[in-house]
Amino acid sequence: MVTDHGKIQTPIFMPVGTAGAVKAVHMRELDQDINAQIILGNTYHLYLRPGMEVIKDAGGLHRFNGWDKPILTDSGGYQVYSLANTRKLSDNGVVFNSHIDGSKHNFTPEYVMDIQRIIGADIMMAFDECTPYPCEYDYAKKSLKLTHDWLKRCVDYFGETDPLYGHKQSLFPIVQGSVYKDLRKQSAEVIAATGADGNAIGGLSVGEPHEMMYEMTDLVCGILPRDKPRNLMGVGTPVNILECIALGIDMFDCVMPTRNARHGLLYTREGIVNIKNVKWKKDFSPIEKNGTSYVDQFYSKAYLRHLIISQEMLGAMIASVHNLAFYLWLVKEAREKIIDGSFASWKNTMIKQLSIRL
Amino acid sequence: MVTDHGKIQTPIFMPVGTAGAVKAVHMRELDQDINAQIILGNTYHLYLRPGMEVIKDAGGLHRFNGWDKPILTDSGGYQVYSLANTRKLSDNGVVFNSHIDGSKHNFTPEYVMDIQRIIGADIMMAFDECTPYPCEYDYAKKSLKLTHDWLKRCVDYFGETDPLYGHKQSLFPIVQGSVYKDLRKQSAEVIAATGADGNAIGGLSVGEPHEMMYEMTDLVCGILPRDKPRNLMGVGTPVNILECIALGIDMFDCVMPTRNARHGLLYTREGIVNIKNVKWKKDFSPIEKNGTSYVDQFYSKAYLRHLIISQEMLGAMIASVHNLAFYLWLVKEAREKIIDGSFASWKNTMIKQLSIRL
Repeated sequence: MVTDHGKIQTPIFMPVGTAGAVKAVHMRELDQDINAQIILGNTYHLYLRPGMEVIKDAGGLHRFNGWDKPILTDSGGYQVYSLANTRKLSDNGVVFNSHIDGSKHNFTPEYVMDIQRIIGADIMMAFDECTPYPCEYDYAKKSLKLTHDWLKRCVDYFGETDPLYGHKQSLFPIVQGSVYKDLRKQSAEVIAATGADGNAIGGLSVGEPHEMMYEMTDLVCGILPRDKPRNLMGVGTPVNILECIALGIDMFDCVMPTRNARHGLLYTREGIVNIKNVKWKKDFSPIEKNGTSYVDQFYSKAYLRHLIISQEMLGAMIASVHNLAFYLWLVKEAREKIIDGSFASWKNTMIKQLSIRL
Repeated sequence: MVTDHGKIQTPIFMPVGTAGAVKAVHMRELDQDINAQIILGNTYHLYLRPGMEVIKDAGGLHRFNGWDKPILTDSGGYQVYSLANTRKLSDNGVVFNSHIDGSKHNFTPEYVMDIQRIIGADIMMAFDECTPYPCEYDYAKKSLKLTHDWLKRCVDYFGETDPLYGHKQSLFPIVQGSVYKDLRKQSAEVIAATGADGNAIGGLSVGEPHEMMYEMTDLVCGILPRDKPRNLMGVGTPVNILECIALGIDMFDCVMPTRNARHGLLYTREGIVNIKNVKWKKDFSPIEKNGTSYVDQFYSKAYLRHLIISQEMLGAMIASVHNLAFYLWLVKEAREKIIDGSFASWKNTMIKQLSIRL
């Protein structure tokens, strides 16, 4: 993918920078140690804090946070449902109260476009309703119609507005439809017909079994255009990512590598490490001897264990850099295996390895 | 000062690495961005967690945390009094309960020497009682006798034991005596007579007025040998540090730059910045344009304000690197001004500047 902030080599994982910062990670580390190519910002969070006035005056999020590579913003839809204190849905949009100070806000499809114009994301998302799991068929069907109606309004309004900072912005529509095949198929057809620069799949990895997620992803990937990037929102574990790359997904984002890092769960080439486990207490070997990040060789397992158990911030910092560097390594490896034609066999070996609890 | 882990140019500030890590700061940043020459570890904390068994098996704290420059450990005395749940003082030592899990422990002067041998600090501290402020004269006098008795036991036992990891360890005795001139004088004479590689001053900056701290420091510096480093424990603000350098202090440590950083208080060449203040909301200028650390130029005031207000870890990380880099710059400047003979006038100008609230 090519953006005005640089190229992105897919498949790619996007570290989540909710409030304009990837938790516990310096921008320098994101760039040089983790090798991130694109990060995600959350529209809902950035809208509430620091707020649009600050981001606009800064000249957009890139200028505000110093990350000058590509940025993708989500639609805010998921956060409105999962975080806001109260929310009232209508055909026009969602009225909700901030989880921070209770203040009242109104997201419409048009307003969410405005917000993402102000943020200046290279990739913007259409405003959608993200259905929970489980979700009744009738609700899912009704919700999908709303998402498609809003999509039309987003596309129209997006077309009527210009980027504010001189760089190009793309709008990705989002496939919804819960876990119902007919709804997912219908949605994928609507989204494919939009002719957007890329397409997203939402409403998965919200509690449904993995097999169901794979089934829906497979179905949708069969319909979305092959020559446009496909973004599976909010997924997932390293195994999820490999499985979904096999199904045709190009872009991933998830809080898992950073959130789990803060609790001492590490993803490595040899399997999963719960660093709090007493077995690492006197293991003075590097965190991961073949790891790609400087933290892997510099710090030992025993030291990281001590830091996590002592709730020292440095523990979260080390583990976050490690996990993100691992995720970025994983998708880079996947890309190389795809290119040299060995992806399928490599994937099967890796999935076994990555499922091991060390 | 010369240690087996490298030279230290005085006056110096020692970042506090309580549990073997300076809060929110990577070792690489401590070395390359902050230019720390020596860090402090807290004997009490390290003893409780990760514990002596782990540190001994690691081959000492330097090997455990990866910091291969000098380390100084305090005596644990101050923490036993300020943190432990319950404590019982006797001539023999202190029995206390851990603030972490309530477990019972017994610090004697000899045991505190053993602990610091295991930690492998380049500079160890004698076990003392740190009197609070205010403190009755009679208590201070009695306490001072105990500290001096314990010092003798520390010195004797230190002489009978060897370093465990091949590098030299020095033992610094500690002047106590609360805010009483006769006690401070008596203590300084006892400590000076020890003939140690360096000497420490404890029991100040515990709540007494700054003028009283300066008076005691001045008195003690007049007695402690000029050719041995003098370490003023737990001090202080940038202004305190400049004043005490003028009085003859060579070494400082304090949690202030890191603790205040986490609350958004920044020390700069132009004065003190409370980054939470609304006046920085849209100030997109660098944190400190002439700052010595990369964070100073890379991140803006408005972005740091947003991070601190949003309680993003990156806010604490940036502010901690900034404040420590500022402290290290300040003592380096002081050293250069001392060498070129302009310290006194520079100090007066700086003290005015550093007291300004921006």
